[in-house]
Amino acid sequence: MTRQYLKFDEWKVIEEGFDPKHHKASESIFSLGNGRMGQRANFEEQYGGSTLQGSYIAGIYYPDKTRVGWWKNGYPEYFAKVINSPNWIGINVEVEGEQLDLAVCSTEDFVRVLDMQQGTLSRSFVATLGNGKKIKVSTTRFLSMTEPDCGLIRYSVTPLNFSGNIVFDAYIDGDVKNEDSNYNEKFWNILETSAGQSGAALLAQTKKLDFRVGYAMRWDINTKDIQVLAKHATKRVGNQIKVSVKQDQEIVLHKYVGIVSSLNHPYEALLQKAAEKAEYAKQKGFEAMLKAHVNHWANIWIHSDIKIEGDVAAQQGIRFNIFHLNQTYTGDDERLNIGPKGFTGEKYGGTTYWDTEAYCIPFFIATAPTSVTRNLLIYRYKHLQKAIENAQKLGFTNGAALYPMVTINGEECHNEWEITFEEIHRNGAIAFAIFNYIRHTEDYAYLEEYGLEVLIGIARFWAQRVNWSVEKKKFVILGVTGPNEYENNVNNNWYTNKMAVWCMKYAAESVERVKNSNPARYKEIIDKTNFDAASETAEWKNIVDNMYFPYNEELQVFMQQDGYMDKLQLTASDIPLAERPINQHWSWDRILRSCFIKQADTLQGIYVFEDEYDTETIRRHFNFYEPRTVHESSLSPCVHTILAARIAKLDKAYEMYLRTSRLDLDDYNREVHEGLHITSMAGTWMSIVEGFGGKRVQNGNLLVNPIIPVQWNSYSFRIRFKESDMEIRVTQKEVSISSHSDKTIELYVYSEKVVVKPGESKVVALKPDYYA
Amino acid sequence: MTRQYLKFDEWKVIEEGFDPKHHKASESIFSLGNGRMGQRANFEEQYGGSTLQGSYIAGIYYPDKTRVGWWKNGYPEYFAKVINSPNWIGINVEVEGEQLDLAVCSTEDFVRVLDMQQGTLSRSFVATLGNGKKIKVSTTRFLSMTEPDCGLIRYSVTPLNFSGNIVFDAYIDGDVKNEDSNYNEKFWNILETSAGQSGAALLAQTKKLDFRVGYAMRWDINTKDIQVLAKHATKRVGNQIKVSVKQDQEIVLHKYVGIVSSLNHPYEALLQKAAEKAEYAKQKGFEAMLKAHVNHWANIWIHSDIKIEGDVAAQQGIRFNIFHLNQTYTGDDERLNIGPKGFTGEKYGGTTYWDTEAYCIPFFIATAPTSVTRNLLIYRYKHLQKAIENAQKLGFTNGAALYPMVTINGEECHNEWEITFEEIHRNGAIAFAIFNYIRHTEDYAYLEEYGLEVLIGIARFWAQRVNWSVEKKKFVILGVTGPNEYENNVNNNWYTNKMAVWCMKYAAESVERVKNSNPARYKEIIDKTNFDAASETAEWKNIVDNMYFPYNEELQVFMQQDGYMDKLQLTASDIPLAERPINQHWSWDRILRSCFIKQADTLQGIYVFEDEYDTETIRRHFNFYEPRTVHESSLSPCVHTILAARIAKLDKAYEMYLRTSRLDLDDYNREVHEGLHITSMAGTWMSIVEGFGGKRVQNGNLLVNPIIPVQWNSYSFRIRFKESDMEIRVTQKEVSISSHSDKTIELYVYSEKVVVKPGESKVVALKPDYYA
Repeated sequence: MTRQYLKFDEWKVIEEGFDPKHHKASESIFSLGNGRMGQRANFEEQYGGSTLQGSYIAGIYYPDKTRVGWWKNGYPEYFAKVINSPNWIGINVEVEGEQLDLAVCSTEDFVRVLDMQQGTLSRSFVATLGNGKKIKVSTTRFLSMTEPDCGLIRYSVTPLNFSGNIVFDAYIDGDVKNEDSNYNEKFWNILETSAGQSGAALLAQTKKLDFRVGYAMRWDINTKDIQVLAKHATKRVGNQIKVSVKQDQEIVLHKYVGIVSSLNHPYEALLQKAAEKAEYAKQKGFEAMLKAHVNHWANIWIHSDIKIEGDVAAQQGIRFNIFHLNQTYTGDDERLNIGPKGFTGEKYGGTTYWDTEAYCIPFFIATAPTSVTRNLLIYRYKHLQKAIENAQKLGFTNGAALYPMVTINGEECHNEWEITFEEIHRNGAIAFAIFNYIRHTEDYAYLEEYGLEVLIGIARFWAQRVNWSVEKKKFVILGVTGPNEYENNVNNNWYTNKMAVWCMKYAAESVERVKNSNPARYKEIIDKTNFDAASETAEWKNIVDNMYFPYNEELQVFMQQDGYMDKLQLTASDIPLAERPINQHWSWDRILRSCFIKQADTLQGIYVFEDEYDTETIRRHFNFYEPRTVHESSLSPCVHTILAARIAKLDKAYEMYLRTSRLDLDDYNREVHEGLHITSMAGTWMSIVEGFGGKRVQNGNLLVNPIIPVQWNSYSFRIRFKESDMEIRVTQKEVSISSHSDKTIELYVYSEKVVVKPGESKVVALKPDYYA
Repeated sequence: MTRQYLKFDEWKVIEEGFDPKHHKASESIFSLGNGRMGQRANFEEQYGGSTLQGSYIAGIYYPDKTRVGWWKNGYPEYFAKVINSPNWIGINVEVEGEQLDLAVCSTEDFVRVLDMQQGTLSRSFVATLGNGKKIKVSTTRFLSMTEPDCGLIRYSVTPLNFSGNIVFDAYIDGDVKNEDSNYNEKFWNILETSAGQSGAALLAQTKKLDFRVGYAMRWDINTKDIQVLAKHATKRVGNQIKVSVKQDQEIVLHKYVGIVSSLNHPYEALLQKAAEKAEYAKQKGFEAMLKAHVNHWANIWIHSDIKIEGDVAAQQGIRFNIFHLNQTYTGDDERLNIGPKGFTGEKYGGTTYWDTEAYCIPFFIATAPTSVTRNLLIYRYKHLQKAIENAQKLGFTNGAALYPMVTINGEECHNEWEITFEEIHRNGAIAFAIFNYIRHTEDYAYLEEYGLEVLIGIARFWAQRVNWSVEKKKFVILGVTGPNEYENNVNNNWYTNKMAVWCMKYAAESVERVKNSNPARYKEIIDKTNFDAASETAEWKNIVDNMYFPYNEELQVFMQQDGYMDKLQLTASDIPLAERPINQHWSWDRILRSCFIKQADTLQGIYVFEDEYDTETIRRHFNFYEPRTVHESSLSPCVHTILAARIAKLDKAYEMYLRTSRLDLDDYNREVHEGLHITSMAGTWMSIVEGFGGKRVQNGNLLVNPIIPVQWNSYSFRIRFKESDMEIRVTQKEVSISSHSDKTIELYVYSEKVVVKPGESKVVALKPDYYA
């Protein structure tokens, strides 16, 4: 099912030889980003073949008119999507009157390299044009991590069999389209353009919402023998640079682009700011800018790298995932979040799902400064009022909050009733992320300042969403879609009921904590939220104590939902291969009434609340549910890796790990051309750190219970926990813990307390059978 | 909630005074049809106000590209819709240089009349134009029942305060649009146009499917003082007739239009045939054509009229329903069927639902010749292969048939998974209609020739659609939507399970019957269907014997579906009036998890299988479900009327009857401008005949058990049963049965056998408490 056209390398992704049929996939895989913007690996020069042009600016979106078959009350009229923005990478190359175009000319020695250590995209090739002219091209570009408003390109051309003229057309083009436009609209107006002898500028405006982005370009070239033509058309600006070259003379054009948006600057300053950024980059120079950028990446890698020895494919896979996560979100702007495809494609509209809380936050908590996760939480805090309004649309009252399934600005961006209205467990993930953040950081100030309001809104939602079943004499939650989206509108999804109860319990505890820790702030919150602490928390407690959970006595297994055992009980291995994935072969009703599970659901709950269950219980549930799971969501295998490791099914854990870590590199689902699975990449990290590494937090303590696949010689990862910072290295024999903290570290390895002093390491023998 | 702007009259619908805000509603209400075509009550002359132009030709449809938010496997790429066709009624009137337009001029004495006895639409008014010219206009039009390819218009103008020039522009316009076009496409090409001195013609072609329709127009006028101009543009043809008139001189223009389609004639003959039809109508003349048309209607009324004395609103209501049903479907073409809006609007695309089998067939069986219902059944027989293919798309095999939810040509025309894939009870209605037809007609030849194949396909579907629940140790049907569409994807909908079992039982009995009655044909069928009689019927029997039916022991009530009693149990009276109808105020998830029922579901099953239940059981179920029912489907109240009558809740029955019989006339749902609720009109007829009249068929016998609302002096209806034809008249005192048969009639009135000889009547005392 996979396609493997890329070379294995520990730090690089390498494509050798140009095959147009891989190009769109490569455009995704080799994407660059710096948190503020992202760019697919489109070619700088003209390309007549199949391509998905993608240049995205974080936080700049368009409310596209909803397309729907059958309208339901409560659907959004519009939904926001991050949009393809003006093309700033363009450098067309005309060789003796003919355009360089890899769709047309013949190519030798093509190599495309994503250097994950340095954060650069490079390409080199020899092209023979239709007119017989042969040139060597090599390019490097990066989106600066240190100057996130700057994109830089080095474009070099060497004529190999002629002397003559080459014309570079370095441009910025505002006339771009979105494949994902619902009604074929174009989303940008161009307000201003200009071009001079050494650069050009363009001011673009999004329709409807009037976001504005200023672009400025500067360039330099390593020859004096040029003629420059300034060009500005209605929607495109640039310079044509005619260069007279000799055979074997390497011409190097550097393009420096400044890109600034109205998110960060007033309208009237945008062109000026963009010009300053471009000019700054040019003055500093490509090499110096690159050096700063590489240094910045080196620091990221110190904290987030995972090293695997003895398995280059696994090593490349995990670094690829970590690299893209860090490109997508840098955590310095609480207005931004992480879309399932990051900056690598249009699908899912660049919007935020529960993926952020359930998958990305565990990664950033452990690998990035506290502020990064905190900003992801504040993003939701700032959307609380919209979440309350969203709940009101669905009939809820009194400050109950339902966060949208899909959002950019806090408003719902999805319109399938079974998801939009019913996949409400997302609310639980948002509450749990607060808990998870605090247990890693002890940042209780966050709870006081922001968290508690969110928890109250969410708990109120659940309290209204349950109803008393006279028949069951318990509270029930009817009509939901759980994490397993291959069930819709079910009653008493175990995961959802579990999350609901947990949210109400945690909200009540948090109310009590803040009341004691910060009475003044507490008073503010109860006034603001009109919170009747005594009666509301009593109501929550009543629900918590009397919630119904479907359970099968005979199997001693929690049931994913009411009626699950009425289904014909098969396992995924009973499905003919020709019918996999079932979502491409079966009609929806058939999927729904089958027992097959798209992604971890009950097991997701057991993963989240693992402390409550003993190994035998976890094993029983894993053995029941995993064989019924088809893993047709990229978010599924990681949870299974972690639980498989937890019950000492190391082979299964490794199988699942492989499925997640090279999902995009090997294009398991034949869809990588649409973009990468950014959020599930965090799941890959979790697979190693929580799965093989056995990292847990329990009762305020850090635990690690490592095991190691037989295929690996060693692996190591670095984690932050409270004020400590340490590297864990696991070999087939031992576990070593090295401190990078200036305080003494305490943790539990295989239930034994280990104390590591600043700068020191401790070694513990591997216990491969710890969970057996 | 209603709006009542029409006058009460026993035989007419009358609108006095022109109010543009009612116009679109009136366009629906005053619609005409003759089975072969239909026409909304659009004005002949130019109208600049809000209007829904609608001219429909039965069987001419367009496969519009599906519009959908989120695609599911199995959805149709295209769906067929009956489309707005060239406008043939157009007669513009220019008075001394100014166009007559009721949106612009002032109007007095406006009267619009739908004469239901005669089948005509008339209109008269005095208009004062902007130029001060005052004219009296009166028009009459009809779609001939005797020459169904002909439409005729009488258009008269009398100048009241001037002598001068009037220009009539009588035209046919092919440049029409559909409001319901998914992508604003126009659906017609115009292939040929011509115009002469006394008429014009136009040949239109639908895009994609190449249906063709020929239109020809003739006219005459009661003055010689005219100048005629022939006009043909690209898509419009006609004659301009300039008339010099004197004050108070009535000018009468007759327009005769022939409309013939490629459904009935070869392409090349269409223009010729249309011309012949127009010419024929002109030669015969307006009055003679009208007389034949009125005679035809008189005969329809003899068999289908219901007379109500003492309640003019009820009388008008029931006749309005009967009139429109007979306009919509005449039963002479088995390629045609009945759309929920008939020829009165675009909504629902003129397509066929289960409404036909569940509601319309009981009406036509009793009031129309046998052939009418037989043709409705053959329509489905001819779609059997498509139904098998439809089931294959959903994973079924071996000739299992699933009829589409919505169709014109046998292919599915709907794309909501919860309806398209899951509202499978429709299959049961199609099987039951065969049974119902045969028990009324004893036409067992139908079973042999057509019915059995359909029954086998349907039974096979059910046999594959069930699965064995290890937990329940019964067969279950998972993931369905029952008749109550306010529940989706539920398990074990009682009605659906009941229907499934009945279908398999009836199919097995029918197999046995045909095997004995016609072994040769039986052999043909088992060969054709590859039917393994012994094993397949054994499998059906096993399922029939072991089907699960949800039942609440405490309430002694069948449960609508699994888990129904987990819902918060309220009644419709608990819903604030401001939130009714809930489908306009509540989000879909809220509707779904509420206990509220859109339309009869379990009660629909009890209605269908009433013989199996005693009065106490029926009462218990009615008392449980009716209060939970919001009747937000037009198909709901009639079933409740019938059951309320059955359990002697006469007040409730009358309340429900009112709701159904004047639904469109009084515009209960504020949507009549979109078209009439044609199929539910048959339910209104059922309300009287089966509800108050207590008509049943049991064990091959006809039963009537009449009661009568206190508001009525009497009511009467005529019914056909087997070879008999009789009128039942019910007063507050007695029931009389008058024979119109040439054979002796036997029936049971209040369980007593009554025998009526040809031409005679029998009288039985009313037993108002028979069911008490």
